[in-house]
Amino acid sequence: MACMRRTSFLQRAFAMLAGTNVIPGWMREPGGTVPAYGSPSSFESAVARSPADARNIALSPLAAQRGIITASGLCFVRCHAGIPAIDPSQHRLLIHGLVKSPLVLTMGDLARLPAVARIHFLECSGNTGSEWRGPAAETVQQSHGLASCCEWTGVRLRDLLELVGVSPSARWFLAEGADAAAFDRSIPIAKAYDDALLAYGQNGEMLRPEQGYPLRLIVPGYEGSANVKWLRRIKLLAQPVYSREETARYTDLMPNGSARAFTLIMEAKSVIVSPSGGQHVSSGRNQVVGFAWSGRGKIAHVDVSLDGGSSWRRAALDTPVLPKAFSRFTVAFDWNGQDMALLSRATDETGYVQPTLAQLVRVRGVNSGYHNNAIHGWRVSTTGAVSRL
Amino acid sequence: MACMRRTSFLQRAFAMLAGTNVIPGWMREPGGTVPAYGSPSSFESAVARSPADARNIALSPLAAQRGIITASGLCFVRCHAGIPAIDPSQHRLLIHGLVKSPLVLTMGDLARLPAVARIHFLECSGNTGSEWRGPAAETVQQSHGLASCCEWTGVRLRDLLELVGVSPSARWFLAEGADAAAFDRSIPIAKAYDDALLAYGQNGEMLRPEQGYPLRLIVPGYEGSANVKWLRRIKLLAQPVYSREETARYTDLMPNGSARAFTLIMEAKSVIVSPSGGQHVSSGRNQVVGFAWSGRGKIAHVDVSLDGGSSWRRAALDTPVLPKAFSRFTVAFDWNGQDMALLSRATDETGYVQPTLAQLVRVRGVNSGYHNNAIHGWRVSTTGAVSRL
Repeated sequence: MACMRRTSFLQRAFAMLAGTNVIPGWMREPGGTVPAYGSPSSFESAVARSPADARNIALSPLAAQRGIITASGLCFVRCHAGIPAIDPSQHRLLIHGLVKSPLVLTMGDLARLPAVARIHFLECSGNTGSEWRGPAAETVQQSHGLASCCEWTGVRLRDLLELVGVSPSARWFLAEGADAAAFDRSIPIAKAYDDALLAYGQNGEMLRPEQGYPLRLIVPGYEGSANVKWLRRIKLLAQPVYSREETARYTDLMPNGSARAFTLIMEAKSVIVSPSGGQHVSSGRNQVVGFAWSGRGKIAHVDVSLDGGSSWRRAALDTPVLPKAFSRFTVAFDWNGQDMALLSRATDETGYVQPTLAQLVRVRGVNSGYHNNAIHGWRVSTTGAVSRL
Repeated sequence: MACMRRTSFLQRAFAMLAGTNVIPGWMREPGGTVPAYGSPSSFESAVARSPADARNIALSPLAAQRGIITASGLCFVRCHAGIPAIDPSQHRLLIHGLVKSPLVLTMGDLARLPAVARIHFLECSGNTGSEWRGPAAETVQQSHGLASCCEWTGVRLRDLLELVGVSPSARWFLAEGADAAAFDRSIPIAKAYDDALLAYGQNGEMLRPEQGYPLRLIVPGYEGSANVKWLRRIKLLAQPVYSREETARYTDLMPNGSARAFTLIMEAKSVIVSPSGGQHVSSGRNQVVGFAWSGRGKIAHVDVSLDGGSSWRRAALDTPVLPKAFSRFTVAFDWNGQDMALLSRATDETGYVQPTLAQLVRVRGVNSGYHNNAIHGWRVSTTGAVSRL
């Protein structure tokens, strides 16, 4: 009974602390059972991809992301013929073209090959594509939600190339999906020998359907669409195939009317996710939280400005800082009702510095929908409301 | 039409490769829409915690884990009064006891404090507890499924202790949950100043309900139960409270009848998850895959034996190797119908070597249900069937 009285006293105390006289049910009665496969709390139902139930695109709710891993259920999605429901027992990977011994592999064959696990970001080259002419999106999900970061597990492509024996004339490879779009991209063969993976695992389990189940290409640091999902075919080639997806699409239209093609590497970029558009800052101590990433390696440092770029301070980076992965940065600040203009600027280990939009436009014009990695920011008004800067 | 013919030819080719004449629907027709929150493929429904719908325990399907991150939906669960459904707006954290200024924090208050993200394993001290008298479990989910590894995001406990001002007489702190069990554990205060976190994030989103939503203690490397879930109270103390959970439970009964208490650190351990009990090895090249972890820091190396311990070979470790986190190890082997006895042995950065069961029993006897980190193995029979060694 002593124990019961203590508990009862504490329960009343916690009810009081929560500003109510009612002791919450979860302190009094046994809770629920353990589901075979868990889901988020119902109190988190607002944390979702947007738009839901679209066939081909959905943005990740970056403002709600905790840590560098994007929850598998919330990763951004871009596909070109919806999400195929592939039976893994019927799935095959064909490796052919300029090789000595073409090979057909089942998922079982792939599972028996050496595999590695790596944490890497993926970013659609169209991310922030609406902002070439200046601020357009109201929230960070709308402006930067075509980026995610996951652990990917799979077979090194170079191990498979050893098995098939690549002809010296091979310079590129085609990766093709098993979806109804038969989506395909040409990739320089050097990437295959560097860090390309044939991934079947994502964040500890098999790939999610919308991420390419049962197999996708991961070309770390390359634009999202090159990481071909539902991968069914790798063809070794002397030159690119110049498919629709690397000519009419996913090229950068320059001011002189020419188009940059095969601009595969995603350059260093950063974005502040808190405070961000639609949020509200309260008085006192607060934290700027954001993510930075580079397709060329590790983030070296991130600078944050609270005054629209007049002064900058170095952000703290969460460890571990991994190559071609999200790095999470933070800066503490005090807010006492002042108007603020928040900016973040990433520098990667190659020394590349995230450019301003003006610098980007000077070189690339405003006709390109792709590869906008400009410095981005938010305004905190005197009411605490946060909007696009 | 040229394009259509090419696609059609390829579709027929892939149908043929899959051993059927029927072109799969997913190659012909647009797929599904993007859910607001995603789920695994229906072909993965066998990958689940076990038992399902138990109130207080569920084991993680380690054999199906890809990479070092355990999917949030599949993390092991151990709780003492079911899973409470806590409204985060009503949740409070009280910090009191031997402090200058007791503090009550809302989840909103915590969100405004500096936070870090770290990847750490959690292991119930009862993991592998059924095997003190020798092999008992048939699968790795049954024998080692009370271990998982996630990214945890939250506030350093030491930052909060600075806010409240800890009295010099404080040597321990009590952590207490808001569940109906009011589960509580005493922790040495040094851990608070080292790496303890008040975590609200898990694998990129808010904690799952069964992992302590909206707030839990993370004491990296300490036994699972010390990582108190649904955390509502931290009390600074001169000595432990000697609660039920650190006296009648979670102590190690020694051969002389005494009990080791506060054996919080989980020592180095490893387990092979593939091939593992219930699986079947096919002829040719195969991979040993396993996980190793240590509550004292990083894994230095893992040795694998294919012959019951007569000879050992050094396993490859996936990078990054993180402190107090799963490390994934692999060793290639060829199987041609021979009988094999697979073992793994972890060594951590302190030089501690995972012991044999005989070594453990010599010191600890067989009365303890907790802290069995013995070397463990699997037999591959001449049929390829895998069973407990």
